[in-house]
Amino acid sequence: MKIPRKMRAVVLTGHGGPDKLEVRNDWPVPEPGPRDVLIRVSACGMNNTDVNTRSGWYAKQVTTATTGEAAEDTNLEDPTWGGGSIAFPRIQGADVVGEVVACGAEADQGLLGKRVMTDNWLRDWDDPTRLDGVGYFGSEQDGGYAEFTIIDHRNVGTVQSGLGDAELATFSCSYTTAEGMLENARVGSRDLVLVTGASGGVGSALVQLAKRRRAIVIALASEAKHAQVSELGADIVLPRSPENLSEAIWESAGTRKVTVVADVVGGPAWPDLIEQLCRGGRYVCSGAIAGPMVSFDLRTLYLHDLTLFGSTIVPPYVFRNLVRYIENGEVRPLLAATYPLEDFHAAQAAFVSKKHFGNVVITVRDR
Amino acid sequence: MKIPRKMRAVVLTGHGGPDKLEVRNDWPVPEPGPRDVLIRVSACGMNNTDVNTRSGWYAKQVTTATTGEAAEDTNLEDPTWGGGSIAFPRIQGADVVGEVVACGAEADQGLLGKRVMTDNWLRDWDDPTRLDGVGYFGSEQDGGYAEFTIIDHRNVGTVQSGLGDAELATFSCSYTTAEGMLENARVGSRDLVLVTGASGGVGSALVQLAKRRRAIVIALASEAKHAQVSELGADIVLPRSPENLSEAIWESAGTRKVTVVADVVGGPAWPDLIEQLCRGGRYVCSGAIAGPMVSFDLRTLYLHDLTLFGSTIVPPYVFRNLVRYIENGEVRPLLAATYPLEDFHAAQAAFVSKKHFGNVVITVRDR
Repeated sequence: MKIPRKMRAVVLTGHGGPDKLEVRNDWPVPEPGPRDVLIRVSACGMNNTDVNTRSGWYAKQVTTATTGEAAEDTNLEDPTWGGGSIAFPRIQGADVVGEVVACGAEADQGLLGKRVMTDNWLRDWDDPTRLDGVGYFGSEQDGGYAEFTIIDHRNVGTVQSGLGDAELATFSCSYTTAEGMLENARVGSRDLVLVTGASGGVGSALVQLAKRRRAIVIALASEAKHAQVSELGADIVLPRSPENLSEAIWESAGTRKVTVVADVVGGPAWPDLIEQLCRGGRYVCSGAIAGPMVSFDLRTLYLHDLTLFGSTIVPPYVFRNLVRYIENGEVRPLLAATYPLEDFHAAQAAFVSKKHFGNVVITVRDR
Repeated sequence: MKIPRKMRAVVLTGHGGPDKLEVRNDWPVPEPGPRDVLIRVSACGMNNTDVNTRSGWYAKQVTTATTGEAAEDTNLEDPTWGGGSIAFPRIQGADVVGEVVACGAEADQGLLGKRVMTDNWLRDWDDPTRLDGVGYFGSEQDGGYAEFTIIDHRNVGTVQSGLGDAELATFSCSYTTAEGMLENARVGSRDLVLVTGASGGVGSALVQLAKRRRAIVIALASEAKHAQVSELGADIVLPRSPENLSEAIWESAGTRKVTVVADVVGGPAWPDLIEQLCRGGRYVCSGAIAGPMVSFDLRTLYLHDLTLFGSTIVPPYVFRNLVRYIENGEVRPLLAATYPLEDFHAAQAAFVSKKHFGNVVITVRDR
């Protein structure tokens, strides 16, 4: 195909409120480097990372729940996920689905014309297990809220699936994050797993992927979404903040303790989550949307032989496994809503309000 | 030998201050069960667990540093290490060295007459990896602050060593705890390990055992004890609470981050410890003598892919390995002071004051 020189894109001009996002139609189309592919974007899923990066929520000065509003402090310390600083203007968006329309000279030419989804961890492909210097697609490099994007050819996976592009764009970031958490905590069929935020992107992925591992799942979600969380396979669904979580677990599961807590919420209820773990129990965390600062009793950590895993970057095999799960129909997409690129502000406002169930996707081009 | 019916013993009569400890000379000598051995105690090392259990420091209501004084609240919730309640009167003391003078019918008769040290974890020996229901010698069962004690024959190790009994009694609890921590955090020769409380029992064990694994060790200790900590092999020794820990590490080690923090201190300086970890770093904890309640930024946990290990119960092989290290001279005893059983109150007051370097041992019988 003939590649145009200009494209539509949503451009982030700095840390701040939603006004820092500009919808443009004159943005230069990127040129692939030798190992890159150029993707014509069909759809790009939304993630909390977009909002947190824009608002500067990762900075030490911010201690509140995610709101999507600009941080009060304007001199933010380490306002990005990885501790570095972002070069603006920046195109965000990590969960790209689209067609490869050009390949760099050293990239896999077999990808040309293929429908692909992206793996959002920008690794040193000479040593892909290295954690230092890893980037996030849409933070350290432009992402997918645009008509075209470029990424290393080793960061794409071809997918054989009857799912639509917007459906496919619900998976990558949320499901690799969730699967990485379950890998870290070595979740298996003997586990009783407590999942927080079970109606959100990562939370609903945790429910599906923990059930795929044959664990018993207790899901916490707001009551309006209980039927949907049950339908995903959660064995027990409890309110988001039960008055007495321990009693609620006892009454519903017939046991006092869980073996794993998989958490994306944090906040004031956090100490109570930790108290639910059995001796030798595992806690794994990939977010803290209700607030990052928690009160921690080290006696609970050490006297109960707990392990707490932080989980952000995942090894490359996690993405490859996810593609296989999708192709096998082992996970199903939860497409809450789609918005065209032009309606990006409305899409992000809806995303931040958390009234949806599952994932919100920006559609760039109808297929 | 002829076993007497009465013995000298230090008896704990309830949770509270030092007045709850009574030195008695009319206590019944225990009778070994079928799988037990009866040990004539020579020496028994002191541990923080003794003080914390007596004072009720493990209870949720207590949030201060260890002082050895009785908790203010008299209605303590879960005042013991394992969450259960203790049957009083109780003889404490986990680190026994002595001679086996009688064996139960099903115990290993070859132990009779042998010098042994004790492994303090009272396991289900049908499934010794099980964590539930494990007891601590001197808490869920009488321990070694007495002329005689009984323990399962699988909880003793014979030791071939030129060390004296009081020296041998410095090792068991502190060194298995420290080795268990290093096992959990998989410390090896590529690690840069920050050790807190490096002049205490577990801290000095951590320094020796991390050096045994060829790690680089940065030790934090009060300045009066720096020469002694250096002599143990610590590569770098820093003040207990450097004004700027990050800078102090940079200036002394030439690097900004450590790969492992091995902590027994906790308290107000805790968040700063966690900030020193590299991406993918490991924190391991077996105590919080400066205070258990800490402020925790979940973003640091998850965005840096950290793992936090609580470490209390150790697998049985850790004790067997420790006996081998002692026999090979790979660790050396740090006997700060000995006190006869009669001077138990003075011994514990000295122990709590933390002016000593290494371990304090009660001697029961001279050999």
